[in-house]
Amino acid sequence: MKLKLAFIGMGNVGRAFLRLLQSKRDELEQNHGITCVVTAIATARHGSLVSHAGLDPGDLAHGIGSGADIEAVADSEPVTDASEAIARCSADILFETTTLNPVDGEPAVTHIRSAILRGISVVTANKAPVAYAYRELSRLAADNDVMFRFEGTVMDGCPVFNLAEFCLPGARVLSLSGVLNSTSNLILTGMEKGRSMAECLLEAQRFGIAEANPDHDLDGWDAMIKIVALANVLMPGDQPVTVADRQGIKHLTEADVARALADGQAVRLVARAETSSSGTAITVRPERVPRSSVLGCVHGTSNVLIIDTDLMGEIAVVENDPGIGQTAYALLSDMMTIHQKLARSRKE
Amino acid sequence: MKLKLAFIGMGNVGRAFLRLLQSKRDELEQNHGITCVVTAIATARHGSLVSHAGLDPGDLAHGIGSGADIEAVADSEPVTDASEAIARCSADILFETTTLNPVDGEPAVTHIRSAILRGISVVTANKAPVAYAYRELSRLAADNDVMFRFEGTVMDGCPVFNLAEFCLPGARVLSLSGVLNSTSNLILTGMEKGRSMAECLLEAQRFGIAEANPDHDLDGWDAMIKIVALANVLMPGDQPVTVADRQGIKHLTEADVARALADGQAVRLVARAETSSSGTAITVRPERVPRSSVLGCVHGTSNVLIIDTDLMGEIAVVENDPGIGQTAYALLSDMMTIHQKLARSRKE
Repeated sequence: MKLKLAFIGMGNVGRAFLRLLQSKRDELEQNHGITCVVTAIATARHGSLVSHAGLDPGDLAHGIGSGADIEAVADSEPVTDASEAIARCSADILFETTTLNPVDGEPAVTHIRSAILRGISVVTANKAPVAYAYRELSRLAADNDVMFRFEGTVMDGCPVFNLAEFCLPGARVLSLSGVLNSTSNLILTGMEKGRSMAECLLEAQRFGIAEANPDHDLDGWDAMIKIVALANVLMPGDQPVTVADRQGIKHLTEADVARALADGQAVRLVARAETSSSGTAITVRPERVPRSSVLGCVHGTSNVLIIDTDLMGEIAVVENDPGIGQTAYALLSDMMTIHQKLARSRKE
Repeated sequence: MKLKLAFIGMGNVGRAFLRLLQSKRDELEQNHGITCVVTAIATARHGSLVSHAGLDPGDLAHGIGSGADIEAVADSEPVTDASEAIARCSADILFETTTLNPVDGEPAVTHIRSAILRGISVVTANKAPVAYAYRELSRLAADNDVMFRFEGTVMDGCPVFNLAEFCLPGARVLSLSGVLNSTSNLILTGMEKGRSMAECLLEAQRFGIAEANPDHDLDGWDAMIKIVALANVLMPGDQPVTVADRQGIKHLTEADVARALADGQAVRLVARAETSSSGTAITVRPERVPRSSVLGCVHGTSNVLIIDTDLMGEIAVVENDPGIGQTAYALLSDMMTIHQKLARSRKE
């Protein structure tokens, strides 16, 4: 089956995904019967294109460097912006990987809505639409018989949404807790070694994992948006999801971290979602946890999510030392979930 | 949809599953359209029955106590043994929950084969058939268009097989490592508190988690059979799976555990599967691991499996403090996976 792919945003994640499609090309064709072509790319600053014949992901992976002019790609027509690209791409799947807007999730929400209304399934690595518009977008996708997937928005490609959807049938999620912000965790575990917060933040920026505005990490915004997204999807219901508390790690001192360590404890930025009869309450704050516990055992950029359920008790998923490759894998994983649905419906 | 269920073995796990079906009865009917009836039960020492009309799981949960005479159940006919029960049950799903035979997996393998050949899907909580006969039984199931599911054989109902099958599409498992034997881990973490191995073993037996023969736990057999089962399923290929080393915790002293603790380490019985060009090598042995690591952070009866993959890097799944309810959930989870397949094929 030929899968026609369109991209809104073509930054580090999009380019890593094109390279992944290239390196897995033979396996995708031989084991899954999937051939991918790219029918549109829209970027904010480097131009936008559509291609009716469809471009080869491998050629694009070679051809588009960081900041390259998209419109210079052969066998394509320039278009003015993302909405024209969506309108003219005739794609099976739209990949939305624009930068996070933590205030309202725009323009990503508009892009996703517009694609779904045209019968295009959507994969996003952008957590804000899942935090701010999940109920609307998932209902819209169901009404239009397409899929809306977002595994990469929390813990990269480590299955958390898919785990709950595909592997816990009949069970109900009662509460969630986790260490979800890699920058904060890299800083806290660096401070355990006696380094300063400023020094550790610089390291996170060098690794390319810190948000463009470091306050999004240090004030707990990133962790908050992720736990809201998780609560929306994993703890469904009509009751509201409300943020009861959001504290980051900014006010912590090296002495705080050292004191915890001396007591056999670690400081972690813990995000929690707990349900009561009035809805789901979100908290994000630094907590002291035993060093030899599931929350305490994640170091550096590693993440963990603990899922407490009615029937299966408590399970945890740990992602060890993720990088850009894992986010690219999230897009692949979602693409293959959508491919299964398309294959089933084309067979019927 | 009415699901007809047959049971070979009706011990603690089978009875916990009947109670679970009873407590989730309304949800199964309303949310999934599933109504369960029991058409056969075979036990080794308490008789066997078939029922053409089908018995209510809730009535059975009340009616069959530990060691109760199965043939006394109303609206049923006695049969001589498991093979007659399988031949006459007309079930959709057979639940195989007989006691572990760690030598060759019999008679469970024979029961499973016989059900599959009659077009009956099989769920087992018995790890030996997955360790000794996975390739044959899974091929046979595919040839007969039925399912062979076994989530409960390793880490109870915590998704490990399902995680790899449903949530890591396109990724290849490179190696596995984990703490898989609850009895050994309960003993080792008890010894960290200065208690003796004998005392901790008694506790495990009181909890009902130790194997009938404690050497199956203490000599590493249980962990070995589980990691072989995992390797068979998660690291497929034509190369052999061979056990390079199997050591248990029996020879460890309280001093060994205390010395590790003094170095900030924990002793854990670690099972590993690693692939090379000549096949997959299994090792099971006590290892010293950092206390603040994913292997070190599981205490008491908790388990962990670390899955290293080509595309998704390293992820870990932790099951915290499991009990009989989690094993019963494994059967429910597998039942619902099979129900989906049946629903799809009845629709076609």
